[in-house]
Amino acid sequence: MDREFLKKLLSGDKLTTTRAITAVENETPSGKGILRSIYPHTGKAYRIGMTGPPGAGKSTIVNKLAHRYRQRGLRVGIIAVDPTSPYTGGALLGDRIRMTDVELDEGVFFRSMASRGSAGGLSRKAAEAADVLDAAGKEIILLETVGVGQSELDIAAAADTTVVVLVPESGDSIQAMKAGLMEIADVFVLNKSDRAGADQAVTAIKTILHFKSQQDGWNPDVVKAVASEGKGIDELTAIIDRHRKYQEETGRLREKRVQRIVNRIRELIGDRLRVDFWNEQRMQQMKEQVRRVIDRQLTPYDVVEELLEEFRDN
Amino acid sequence: MDREFLKKLLSGDKLTTTRAITAVENETPSGKGILRSIYPHTGKAYRIGMTGPPGAGKSTIVNKLAHRYRQRGLRVGIIAVDPTSPYTGGALLGDRIRMTDVELDEGVFFRSMASRGSAGGLSRKAAEAADVLDAAGKEIILLETVGVGQSELDIAAAADTTVVVLVPESGDSIQAMKAGLMEIADVFVLNKSDRAGADQAVTAIKTILHFKSQQDGWNPDVVKAVASEGKGIDELTAIIDRHRKYQEETGRLREKRVQRIVNRIRELIGDRLRVDFWNEQRMQQMKEQVRRVIDRQLTPYDVVEELLEEFRDN
Repeated sequence: MDREFLKKLLSGDKLTTTRAITAVENETPSGKGILRSIYPHTGKAYRIGMTGPPGAGKSTIVNKLAHRYRQRGLRVGIIAVDPTSPYTGGALLGDRIRMTDVELDEGVFFRSMASRGSAGGLSRKAAEAADVLDAAGKEIILLETVGVGQSELDIAAAADTTVVVLVPESGDSIQAMKAGLMEIADVFVLNKSDRAGADQAVTAIKTILHFKSQQDGWNPDVVKAVASEGKGIDELTAIIDRHRKYQEETGRLREKRVQRIVNRIRELIGDRLRVDFWNEQRMQQMKEQVRRVIDRQLTPYDVVEELLEEFRDN
Repeated sequence: MDREFLKKLLSGDKLTTTRAITAVENETPSGKGILRSIYPHTGKAYRIGMTGPPGAGKSTIVNKLAHRYRQRGLRVGIIAVDPTSPYTGGALLGDRIRMTDVELDEGVFFRSMASRGSAGGLSRKAAEAADVLDAAGKEIILLETVGVGQSELDIAAAADTTVVVLVPESGDSIQAMKAGLMEIADVFVLNKSDRAGADQAVTAIKTILHFKSQQDGWNPDVVKAVASEGKGIDELTAIIDRHRKYQEETGRLREKRVQRIVNRIRELIGDRLRVDFWNEQRMQQMKEQVRRVIDRQLTPYDVVEELLEEFRDN
């Protein structure tokens, strides 16, 4: 990578940051080069993940949090991950509305990432974009995604503190996600808590939390908020501070980050093995065999053995 | 595998089928042996996937469909996949209630699969359980899962026909999933269509379908249903029949199944490469390096290169 480019990126230049993230997002060779060059300059930002069902008000909370951190004089980056396809355009429009809100402050960098492809790949790119922001000097990085299955787990894995946003009406869909959410949440926000059923929802969350195994000694708390009016944001910020301090003091933060590096190395190895294995010739060989598999002359397991044997001999 | 066991399985013996699925689910060596031995006896069943948001009535529709196919004298298997953790117990209870309903008929085999682990692995196990049912002589296999992100895509990949169930109230969560659902659905069911907003919901779905690229020449239709009263089930069955016929005549069914085999081989290869690569020694080596990575003396990319080089030299 261009030395001048790196210098500008590390200085926090906005256009350079945008270009770097685009390169990372498109997985270009220069994107890979950028990730490699910036790595020694990462690890300083604190990463906050935000997830929850659609319509829970995650974006509003992220904006309000960004504003609070700006008031403390911290540089803030926001990455909004949209695992649904850009097909309907709905989510993208939402982002655009919001951007005008945070764009007022030059200290907040906002980026939205959407993909028709796999949610898994998208989460990894979001984590890599966070690395770019980290190297570019952002001190707080907010990662936001709608909680639909895998994407929320991936965001939690990329974050130092994970905030789960629910609303009193979430009802059925919370029921379905509850178990997974309980396992990843460091803090719960019950947003729109001026609506009916808020107290019952808080009680329900607390009841389930009560049964949660306290593996890491941290007790997730529930904050009632009305984010559109700014209510509950101070309390949320305070809990995030407390969680950060707790993790720093217990060594849990370092542990989490070690695990994150381990996961990334495993992913990268998996990708490389896949690319090495599936060269054109082996792909061709497999496709020829599949015809015999569908006619039940061979099993997929035979094909796997044969291909692996040939790979090992090379 | 035991020859007697295989014989009993192929004859459709219920207890043997249950034991075979358990072995497959637990990934025991005998489970792997079973999959290999039964493979030549699979490929006869037609697989119908059913997905949609929680509370849409998927189970009711699956039960009613099973009943219709039983009336035609077909042997039916049902696999209900629950990608959420068994933590809350909610979904499991739902299954138990239902089982009494279908258990009345000995011709219907019902199995529910839940996991705290990754949704991806669970979907694969569901597809393998479907292979067991296929070998055991089931002619129709219904695969059901709650639509939360990845799990619906996996079920669609495992099915010959994919049915997406929605309700008038789904609102926000449909909005978020819509794009993905549009791409996988061969048929839509608007269940509980006696409720307010049903016609608007049908119109909304049709409007979006209108913009869908018709890659495979099949036009997904929308069926209005009140499954609890049996309304719409005949129409749904007729559309599934039509879709099956369409796919058989155009060669699309074979194409889909070829793709399924290709995907499975790629998955199996990926697993095996991972296991081969991450032996104890290499795992240890990686963990030692990670300490230097977190202190920014090395990048994850350096570690990856080093490990890969060593792997290739062996």
